[in-house]
Amino acid sequence: MPKQHPIYISVIGGDRDHTTPQGLELAEEVGRRIAEAECILVNGGMGGTMERAAKGAKSAGGTTIGILSTTDRTAANPYIDFAIPTPLGFVRNVLVANASDAVIALPGKWGTTNELSFAMIAGIPVVAIEGWDAKLRDDQGRSRFTEVPHASDAAEAVAMAINLAKQRREG
Amino acid sequence: MPKQHPIYISVIGGDRDHTTPQGLELAEEVGRRIAEAECILVNGGMGGTMERAAKGAKSAGGTTIGILSTTDRTAANPYIDFAIPTPLGFVRNVLVANASDAVIALPGKWGTTNELSFAMIAGIPVVAIEGWDAKLRDDQGRSRFTEVPHASDAAEAVAMAINLAKQRREG
Amino acid sequence: MPKQHPIYISVIGGDRDHTTPQGLELAEEVGRRIAEAECILVNGGMGGTMERAAKGAKSAGGTTIGILSTTDRTAANPYIDFAIPTPLGFVRNVLVANASDAVIALPGKWGTTNELSFAMIAGIPVVAIEGWDAKLRDDQGRSRFTEVPHASDAAEAVAMAINLAKQRREG
Amino acid sequence: MPKQHPIYISVIGGDRDHTTPQGLELAEEVGRRIAEAECILVNGGMGGTMERAAKGAKSAGGTTIGILSTTDRTAANPYIDFAIPTPLGFVRNVLVANASDAVIALPGKWGTTNELSFAMIAGIPVVAIEGWDAKLRDDQGRSRFTEVPHASDAAEAVAMAINLAKQRREG
Repeated sequence: MPKQHPIYISVIGGDRDHTTPQGLELAEEVGRRIAEAECILVNGGMGGTMERAAKGAKSAGGTTIGILSTTDRTAANPYIDFAIPTPLGFVRNVLVANASDAVIALPGKWGTTNELSFAMIAGIPVVAIEGWDAKLRDDQGRSRFTEVPHASDAAEAVAMAINLAKQRREG
Repeated sequence: MPKQHPIYISVIGGDRDHTTPQGLELAEEVGRRIAEAECILVNGGMGGTMERAAKGAKSAGGTTIGILSTTDRTAANPYIDFAIPTPLGFVRNVLVANASDAVIALPGKWGTTNELSFAMIAGIPVVAIEGWDAKLRDDQGRSRFTEVPHASDAAEAVAMAINLAKQRREG
Repeated sequence: MPKQHPIYISVIGGDRDHTTPQGLELAEEVGRRIAEAECILVNGGMGGTMERAAKGAKSAGGTTIGILSTTDRTAANPYIDFAIPTPLGFVRNVLVANASDAVIALPGKWGTTNELSFAMIAGIPVVAIEGWDAKLRDDQGRSRFTEVPHASDAAEAVAMAINLAKQRREG
Repeated sequence: MPKQHPIYISVIGGDRDHTTPQGLELAEEVGRRIAEAECILVNGGMGGTMERAAKGAKSAGGTTIGILSTTDRTAANPYIDFAIPTPLGFVRNVLVANASDAVIALPGKWGTTNELSFAMIAGIPVVAIEGWDAKLRDDQGRSRFTEVPHASDAAEAVAMAINLAKQRREG
């Protein structure tokens, strides 16, 4: 019988300088719900969205993996169980996008757009929280990326991501 | 006296399946104008935007470099002077973005978004042609990425790109 | 107080076609001893040395991380706890080398040489088991890589690797 | 009729700190002979072996491409015609190995071993000059890597590399 892997979900979003207070709250709730669903959280392991999502996951007893943009393991935030240092700098984004069965996009900017586009290219399901691209909007607050499924809150995002991941596995 | 490098400009945009007829025409004109300005054209070396931009550059006697997503050099389009095969698949996008002094974005989709976001992360100047994100618009035709400077036509895009590249070098 | 990370040790060596029966036995013992020392085992997650090292680690209740050369998580061997699929092919070797605090080299060939050289470049301590380069010897059975510390058996290799990892952390 | 690409040959070997005076002389002669044979020289674009090989190629009117380990194009040595900056650090080694139809290994150390092993993994023909691994020998001066074809001088190395490249293309 082949090993049954748990579902891995990557949470992407801005670091401290590229997110919003609401984005950080969403990150923590998304992380917590991922853990409650017994999925594994993957992210870039550093600050901002990455730290709050991992904090949420640990608050519910989950497991967290951080794929770092540096060779220094101690750069991981304290909520990362398994920190994977890399010498790739921001090119590690491709690893965050490809490590998981589904990706949830929270407020962020170019790094988040980079990870989201890597997931879309690879055919990995992405769920964006409404407003994930707050940092990319025009002066009338309009948003785009209409091809990406959007969820209205953390609970819906995690439920959608798990469903899409399951469909893809069975695919 | 240090070697004086020419200006390198990367042209990004969809392959045959992710561009538009207008995008292909723009690609050829942008490529031609890059060569006329004695800049070197860099792109992903394959079809669609990549082929037409290289064709335009060669029509004006320019030099073209293609960084391929495959290890097979013969996958390069016939207008590429120097084809660099890689084993990185679409991760070679980061090389296309980082090889140049400025990036011009033509109509495309996720691969183009991926390259554009890599350039923005790296601080490499990007000029997008109005409508580059035609494939990413919503049902009301609205566009975003307002932080990226937009040009209204090929001539303006190449002029802006060269100016931004020069400013960055002197910076 | 900063998070205290456990010691990560990467075990490198040939897949099924590039190892030896003795190499596979060593892999299992090395994996077991890594787990007994409460270190985390990292490797490429696939077959041969990678599978037997992970099997050994799991026999002692350890934790195993596999960084795969494919985007298919189910390609991981059944002893991998956390499988990280990547789109990098053999370029993932650099991740295996850089993820750990020390590297143990078991019998292998060019892939193993590649990972070993990445570790040496990065300044990550490497311990080679005598004969790790059996597949690379000349007709008189002579070995090289004299700059790499060699251990005579699995127990010595793991002890040396842990000591070198600790020295590097304190360094 | 498909485009007929010239033969690309990568020359690998130590930077200033990881080569020998003889290695530098060999580099210059190898570069010159590559250009005389109307092949394109590819290397890492920086100092030591890379600079001398490019100097040799330019002395015979050849074309040189350097794939840099840095995002700063001006880090290229002055004999590089086309400098490709990358954000990959030493991971760009894989690009040097895979860009060419054959690889010639000159005296070097871990970086050279890394590039050589990438070429061997990818099935790209490698020719090593006797003594390429001088920096890796034991105290009795013994060498290894017997699976790699060795040439006794620069002329033989370039002739062998071109033959192997042609065979592979026809293969």
